[in-house]
Amino acid sequence: MSTPPTSTGPFATATAITPAGPSRYEVEIAEGWDIAGNTNGGYLLSLAGRAMAAAADRPDPVSVTAHYLAPGRPGPGTVTTNVVRSGRRFSTVEGRLHAGGRDLLAVLGTFGDLSDDSGEQGLHVDGEPPELPDPADCHLVVPSEPFPPPFMGHVELRMHPDDAGFFEGRRSGRPLMRGWFRLPDDEPVDTIALLTAVDAFPPTIFNADLPVGWTPTLELTAHVRARPAPGWLACRFSTRFVTGGFLEADGEIWDATGRLVAQSRQLALVPRPHPG
Amino acid sequence: MSTPPTSTGPFATATAITPAGPSRYEVEIAEGWDIAGNTNGGYLLSLAGRAMAAAADRPDPVSVTAHYLAPGRPGPGTVTTNVVRSGRRFSTVEGRLHAGGRDLLAVLGTFGDLSDDSGEQGLHVDGEPPELPDPADCHLVVPSEPFPPPFMGHVELRMHPDDAGFFEGRRSGRPLMRGWFRLPDDEPVDTIALLTAVDAFPPTIFNADLPVGWTPTLELTAHVRARPAPGWLACRFSTRFVTGGFLEADGEIWDATGRLVAQSRQLALVPRPHPG
Repeated sequence: MSTPPTSTGPFATATAITPAGPSRYEVEIAEGWDIAGNTNGGYLLSLAGRAMAAAADRPDPVSVTAHYLAPGRPGPGTVTTNVVRSGRRFSTVEGRLHAGGRDLLAVLGTFGDLSDDSGEQGLHVDGEPPELPDPADCHLVVPSEPFPPPFMGHVELRMHPDDAGFFEGRRSGRPLMRGWFRLPDDEPVDTIALLTAVDAFPPTIFNADLPVGWTPTLELTAHVRARPAPGWLACRFSTRFVTGGFLEADGEIWDATGRLVAQSRQLALVPRPHPG
Repeated sequence: MSTPPTSTGPFATATAITPAGPSRYEVEIAEGWDIAGNTNGGYLLSLAGRAMAAAADRPDPVSVTAHYLAPGRPGPGTVTTNVVRSGRRFSTVEGRLHAGGRDLLAVLGTFGDLSDDSGEQGLHVDGEPPELPDPADCHLVVPSEPFPPPFMGHVELRMHPDDAGFFEGRRSGRPLMRGWFRLPDDEPVDTIALLTAVDAFPPTIFNADLPVGWTPTLELTAHVRARPAPGWLACRFSTRFVTGGFLEADGEIWDATGRLVAQSRQLALVPRPHPG
C-alpha cells in the first residue's frame, strides 16, 4: 500500500487530525469555513474522512456517506471511528464527528488505495467535463458578508458566467451550477479535499425559478474514482427532481486530464412554502 | 405519526423482524432469494431497513446507504441498531446485519414519515418514467438455474424487450435495464420493499459491450421520495461511467401515478480483465 499523499497548505492544516487514543481523533473546526454561521458540510466531511482514512489505514475514500445531524461551528471537535471490516483491498469504517456538545455527522465509508490505477480514461464513459470558459473568464466567487459566504475565501471557485447571474439576482432558471474548483496557493487537491469540493458550490436551487431558499443537506454520498491530477477541477452540479419535500443534487468532478474523479449526490430538504 | 403500513404477503413474511432485546432484531434470510448462491443485496437491505425503521419508530426510509461486507446465505440472522439522532421529523440510525458468523451489511439511514405528503407531482421534475410497453408485452423474467437467478421467482419483473435480449446472449450495447416491477400476488410495495426494488434488476453491465462479468456491489444508496401508489412500478437503471475499476448504476422508480418514488445509486467493483 502506498503512503497516504501528504500535502501541506491551508487546507491540510484546516483538516489536520491528531490521534487521541484508540479510534479517536482530535480536530479543530476552523474559523471562516461557514455559511450563515454554519460550517460548510463538505469541509466537515473532509475532517471526518481524514480521520476515517487514518483509522482504516487506507488513504482514499472510495464511497463515503454522511448524514448531517446538527450544524457545525468553529472550535475543537473529535472524530470517533469504528472499523467495521478490513479486507484485502478495502476497509469499511463508521465515523462520528462531535463538537460543541453534540454529534454533527454520522458517516459510513469504504476506503482503499487509488494510487495504483493505470490512468486509463475508462471502459465506458457516457459524459464529459462541463464546457467552461477559461478560468480567467469565469466568475471568481469572492466572499462578501453575508453572501457569498466566508468559506469561499478558503477555496477558489470560478463559476460559469451563465450560472453566476444569481449573485446579482438573475437566476438562470435551471438548477445547475458549473465552474472550476481549486485550493488557494495551488495546494494539491487530494481525495480528502474532493469531499469538500463536492459541497463547495452554491446550491443548485439558487438558479431555479422556485420559491425555495435555504435547503439543508440531509445526506451526502461521494464516490471517488481517481486521485485528481494537478490543476483546476471542472465541476457540474444539477438537480432534476424537487419533489416530496426533497431535492437531490448530483455532482461530477473532472480533473485537468479530462478524467472523472468524483461523483456525488446529496439529498436536501425543501422547506414547504408557508401557507397563506 | 402514522402507523407503519402493515402489509401481509410473502415479501412481508420474508422480511419479518422479531424484537429480541434492546436495539436487536432477529431475522430469517429466506431461501430462494439468491443469485449464484448469494442472497440478493436489495432483499438484505430490506431486512436491515425494516429493523432500522422499527428502531427509529418511523415507518419510511428517506435515505439509506448500505456497504456490503460479505455475501449472505439463507438462515437466521440479527440486525443490531443504534439510533444516532432522533429529531422532530427524522431519525438517523446505524444498522448492522449479521448472519452465518459474520457481518453482511453496515447501514446508515435516516427515517421519517412519508404519509402526509400532498400527492403533488413536484415543484421541478426534469425526467419522466421510462417508456415501456404494456407489462403483457414485456419480457417476464422466470427463474431458470443458474440464470435468471432463483430470487426472480419472488419478485415480478417484466423487462423492456429492447433490454432483455441479453438473456439470449444479445446484449443491447447500452448499459441500461428498464422494466416493470411488482411483488407477486399484488402484495403492496411499501417503502421497505422499494429497497429491494432498487437492486432487483439484472446488472446494467450485462447489456454493455464490455469484457466484464460479475460486478459485486460495494455500496448502495436509496432515496425514497414517496410511498408508491398501488400497481406496477416503472424502473430504469443505467450506467454512465465504467472507470477506475468501478461503475455506478443509477436507478429511478416511478409509480403507477407517474410519480418518482425512489432514486438509487450503487457503486460496484469492476474486476480487471486478466492480463494475457
